[in-house]
Amino acid sequence: MAFFALNLVDSGVPLSMVCAVIGLIFALLLIAIVIRAPAGNERMRQIAGAVQEGAKAYLNRQVITISVIAIIIFILLFVFKDHPTAVGFIIGAFCSLSAGFIGMRVAVVANVRTTQAATKSLTQALRMAFNGGAVTGLLVVGLALLAVSIFYTLANTMVGHDMAVRSLVGLALGASLISVFARLGGGIYTKAADVGADLVGKIEQGFEEDDPRNPATIADNVGDNVGDCAGMAADVFETYAVSLIGAILVGALTLSGSAAAVIYPFVLGGISVLGAICGVLFVNLTKAKPATALMGGVLTSAIISAILFWPATHVLFPEGVTIAGMVRTPTQLYLASLIGLVMTAVVVAITNYYTSMRYAPVQKIARASETGHATNIIAGLAVGQHATALPVGFIGIAILLSFHFAGLYGIAIAVMSMLSMAGIIISLDSFGPITDNAGGVAVMSHLPKEVRAVTDQLDAVGNTMKAVTKGYAIASAGLAALVLFGSYVEELKAHFAGKGQAFDFQFSLTEPKVIIGLFLGGLLPFIFTAFSMDAVGKAAGAVVREVRRQLQAQPGILTGKDTPEYGTCVDIVTKAALREMIVPALLPIVFVVAVAVIKQLGPIVLGGLLVGTIVTGLFVAIAMTSSGGAWDNAKKFIEEGNLGGKGSFAHQAAVTGDTVGDPYKDTAGPAINPMIKVVNIVAILIIPIFF
Amino acid sequence: MAFFALNLVDSGVPLSMVCAVIGLIFALLLIAIVIRAPAGNERMRQIAGAVQEGAKAYLNRQVITISVIAIIIFILLFVFKDHPTAVGFIIGAFCSLSAGFIGMRVAVVANVRTTQAATKSLTQALRMAFNGGAVTGLLVVGLALLAVSIFYTLANTMVGHDMAVRSLVGLALGASLISVFARLGGGIYTKAADVGADLVGKIEQGFEEDDPRNPATIADNVGDNVGDCAGMAADVFETYAVSLIGAILVGALTLSGSAAAVIYPFVLGGISVLGAICGVLFVNLTKAKPATALMGGVLTSAIISAILFWPATHVLFPEGVTIAGMVRTPTQLYLASLIGLVMTAVVVAITNYYTSMRYAPVQKIARASETGHATNIIAGLAVGQHATALPVGFIGIAILLSFHFAGLYGIAIAVMSMLSMAGIIISLDSFGPITDNAGGVAVMSHLPKEVRAVTDQLDAVGNTMKAVTKGYAIASAGLAALVLFGSYVEELKAHFAGKGQAFDFQFSLTEPKVIIGLFLGGLLPFIFTAFSMDAVGKAAGAVVREVRRQLQAQPGILTGKDTPEYGTCVDIVTKAALREMIVPALLPIVFVVAVAVIKQLGPIVLGGLLVGTIVTGLFVAIAMTSSGGAWDNAKKFIEEGNLGGKGSFAHQAAVTGDTVGDPYKDTAGPAINPMIKVVNIVAILIIPIFF
Repeated sequence: MAFFALNLVDSGVPLSMVCAVIGLIFALLLIAIVIRAPAGNERMRQIAGAVQEGAKAYLNRQVITISVIAIIIFILLFVFKDHPTAVGFIIGAFCSLSAGFIGMRVAVVANVRTTQAATKSLTQALRMAFNGGAVTGLLVVGLALLAVSIFYTLANTMVGHDMAVRSLVGLALGASLISVFARLGGGIYTKAADVGADLVGKIEQGFEEDDPRNPATIADNVGDNVGDCAGMAADVFETYAVSLIGAILVGALTLSGSAAAVIYPFVLGGISVLGAICGVLFVNLTKAKPATALMGGVLTSAIISAILFWPATHVLFPEGVTIAGMVRTPTQLYLASLIGLVMTAVVVAITNYYTSMRYAPVQKIARASETGHATNIIAGLAVGQHATALPVGFIGIAILLSFHFAGLYGIAIAVMSMLSMAGIIISLDSFGPITDNAGGVAVMSHLPKEVRAVTDQLDAVGNTMKAVTKGYAIASAGLAALVLFGSYVEELKAHFAGKGQAFDFQFSLTEPKVIIGLFLGGLLPFIFTAFSMDAVGKAAGAVVREVRRQLQAQPGILTGKDTPEYGTCVDIVTKAALREMIVPALLPIVFVVAVAVIKQLGPIVLGGLLVGTIVTGLFVAIAMTSSGGAWDNAKKFIEEGNLGGKGSFAHQAAVTGDTVGDPYKDTAGPAINPMIKVVNIVAILIIPIFF
Repeated sequence: MAFFALNLVDSGVPLSMVCAVIGLIFALLLIAIVIRAPAGNERMRQIAGAVQEGAKAYLNRQVITISVIAIIIFILLFVFKDHPTAVGFIIGAFCSLSAGFIGMRVAVVANVRTTQAATKSLTQALRMAFNGGAVTGLLVVGLALLAVSIFYTLANTMVGHDMAVRSLVGLALGASLISVFARLGGGIYTKAADVGADLVGKIEQGFEEDDPRNPATIADNVGDNVGDCAGMAADVFETYAVSLIGAILVGALTLSGSAAAVIYPFVLGGISVLGAICGVLFVNLTKAKPATALMGGVLTSAIISAILFWPATHVLFPEGVTIAGMVRTPTQLYLASLIGLVMTAVVVAITNYYTSMRYAPVQKIARASETGHATNIIAGLAVGQHATALPVGFIGIAILLSFHFAGLYGIAIAVMSMLSMAGIIISLDSFGPITDNAGGVAVMSHLPKEVRAVTDQLDAVGNTMKAVTKGYAIASAGLAALVLFGSYVEELKAHFAGKGQAFDFQFSLTEPKVIIGLFLGGLLPFIFTAFSMDAVGKAAGAVVREVRRQLQAQPGILTGKDTPEYGTCVDIVTKAALREMIVPALLPIVFVVAVAVIKQLGPIVLGGLLVGTIVTGLFVAIAMTSSGGAWDNAKKFIEEGNLGGKGSFAHQAAVTGDTVGDPYKDTAGPAINPMIKVVNIVAILIIPIFF
């Protein structure tokens, strides 16, 4: 055993690189499969082309905008920090952007091919949409694992182990920065287009969803891709990288005697890439119903990981490891890693309960719609708040247990193991916009009812998947941020030790500075989401005005004689989204730097701030995304013919709830994830500059 | 100087009792003035009589329900704690209930007299409504100060100083318990009646507000009194008592050498009763416009207090006092007390900005109503979240400064000084339901337009006052709870010292148990408000069904031929409110006890929980009450003829926002205040039982 152990300590990182490369090759394979599939008739290709154009145009501009900010930060890091950190930053930013960019390009190719496959069978359509989504999923874990391991290996040889570990924070910042912008920009884009299209289209003109006469309909379809696909990919790429780096930091800082402790998170990541591939294969081989097939894929992936974690843990830690003065057995470490897998399942199940139309919460909202708009809203808000209880309770249990098994390192391992599931989870998430778009293409191409029935069925599954993965993204982001806070404290210790000063910060709740920090940090998610919602409102207003203008200028649009200028709407949303994302995206960074700069506040208030942001952020994000998902499905529940069905008074009220839920679940709520991480990472980075 | 100092240390408590009695006598005087005033014509008296009946019926039943629970807790305390604590509990409960009960009885007498006075002049109506409200204001501070000082003095002689201070916590619990129930029960009652009346009356039947054909209209008018008047009175009575007791506890526990430290909070309270009386006199003498007159009253009260605090502080602490090893000058203590007064002004100004129709936030919501229900809701939710920033920022500054001046004791003094303003602030708050009812009486009695113009004007001012005092109630509750958390830690120290065990809890953010505590505590406001909103929904549903039934059974109601059975609606809301308040009211108590009982959690998790509840509670409460107030006034802004005025599409959307805002601002949001305090008090009480 000891012989293998030595080997895995040395070969763990290279082996995980191999796993990452296998994942990327598999993603390429899937891309080839998707592209080779037939893309349907002329009209379908034309519509899909418009969506592709719009998505590309948006992403190109987003890249330019973010690059300017990224270069400024790169220069600041290069000058005021150190070169490895600056280089790490650029690598993190580049990979995060790439994962989202490539994934989205594939998604906008897969959508029309899913529609085409839907003309053949449900299973074929399911596989096409899922494979398109799986590209993003595998890219996220493959690129994240590869980037961190290559950077770590190179930096290790070039600048030594300590510096290598430290400069990983730069990589995390790069990924975070992209993720905040991608989430916000994409989130504002998708909901401004959606709300704008609905307000004029559905409410003023009585159009159906995806009516080709609606000038904002292409922008709406583009939005699904830039928001759910590119935004989510960047977000989870970041959480993955941050969790991996956080685990490495904790392993290196608190367990400096054990090389295996640093290697272990890589190994977990590598194994789960293989698990994710097995999950993808399962979905491609089963003939089960869509929801069952997808959940089977997740289960396959989790079981493979759980089985392989066991020998890996025992080989890496044959004698266990000493943490905080206590020897922890390999079984204890293994149990910590299992907690992450279990948490994934638990969070998915809970979110599903609160947002699926099969359960009480959504049906309660639907019934409340019968008494009007206001009662629908009140019920939806209440459901969102109820939905925070179970996830937070389980997060508490997970923290307690994993800490019990292996201290702070145990928490870090549980988080990394949870994130290692991202490969398959993001595949589910990206499945959502593809099926949504597939439905749009079917409607706009006037395909027969049977095809629409297939795409509608997939779209409904996709909606639940999108909601469910949001719960996962938030819970994992909160846990990852807690690990980062642990790293902040350790870094602070090391920093003051390096200056020869005693570190006597307790971050005790009895210190008023900690309380003030908790308040300031607690404030961030509230104003951050307020700004994000304002941004959606402003951008949606611009869309409304443009759609009204087109319908007035060209009355032929309404009769179907004239084609609307889809491109103008795409252009307006693009500009508005990029303009509106700047203030909220910079807000958390400015906040952290301000607290660090003001002498009366300093490192203690900053510590409180980090935790405060995590605490309220978790609640606000879960409440918002759950409310949003539940409102959405309450509307769908009524549209299925319940409580009066489409066009009833209850339906009108449900549409209001759905519209309120749009920025809740797709802009403000999910943007909290990267925000709470970026706050923690910036805090770690600025320690040597300001303290 | 030293001679006086000795005297004030001995005579401070008796003198403050004298001030409290003066306040109560003045309140009696005001009651006499109100009752002696003419009560209008037959029809007016009849309507007012129905409201009085309904309010009395509700309060009587509420007293019975709460008494049962209070007696159980009394017995538990008597058996498992000590007798003084149990006696304190009953006194606290009784006084809190009395303040609300008497205040509300006067309010339902003052309403019709305000309508009658409005037939004469605006100034007379203003004074009548204000004097009615001032009864509650003076009762709150007078009874709270008197109860605490008598109990403290008696217990001091009977069971010694230490035990006297400890058993004060029992008094705080009594007040808190009543306050949670009064806030919740009253809040559910008022909004169930309001929402129920609006849903059927305004939306289905097109009735105006206070239309006598609406069977729920009397219940709606009763609701204003039981919610805004009785509920708020119990709430602030409790915060006052808790702040006073908290300051005494901190003074006694951390400054055991200084008797003056325990006397000082009494003296501040006594002085401010005199300040409040001067404020009331100012309003009765000025001929300024309503809003100016009321703000002038607050200013007078604050200036008198600020002037008298100076000599009192210097006489009590001629040599200053030693806190945490540093001598603090009397000027430093005085500055800490000033912070409380300044905070009152700051919070009032900020809340006014976010909820008054003269400023940008409300107008933004009004404009968003033009694009529909959903955009109105989104804008309102965003305003509420924005509104958290400034109060929390200023609370941070206040904590920092008052701690800088005099440590934890400085914070306690600042909070006590802030609460000492309750006399005049609650006068403003209770002014609200009186003017609201006065308008209702005017409409239902078909009084001429000129009278309604006067009552409408007062009603608008009353609305702003209600919103503004909510900000004050929440900010002060948050600060009071922080002082209680400080007492929790000190009690814990004393407890473990008494058991001969070392107290080595740091409540450090690096302890996972503290983080778990923060999460669990952070959760409480979210599920508590979710349950409260559900309760309103259920109770409102019962009202809707009853109103529909009456209108169907007696079609003559619509034509004005038949009189609706107002009493049945009152009865239904009463029962529903009392039934629905039980679960949310017991939730925080059960939560705290559960955390204390579970061995794996214990005192550290409980400490985190206390702070977590304060942090998220403050944000949730401010966001909810601000959103609610802003929605209300956005509707009023449109009704004044802006953006299309009454009946426009924008107005319909604004009505939706107003209805959503109802449970936000009048049930869930304000009920958080007593909740965060009750959590802290219960935690202090159970230390010797479970740890």
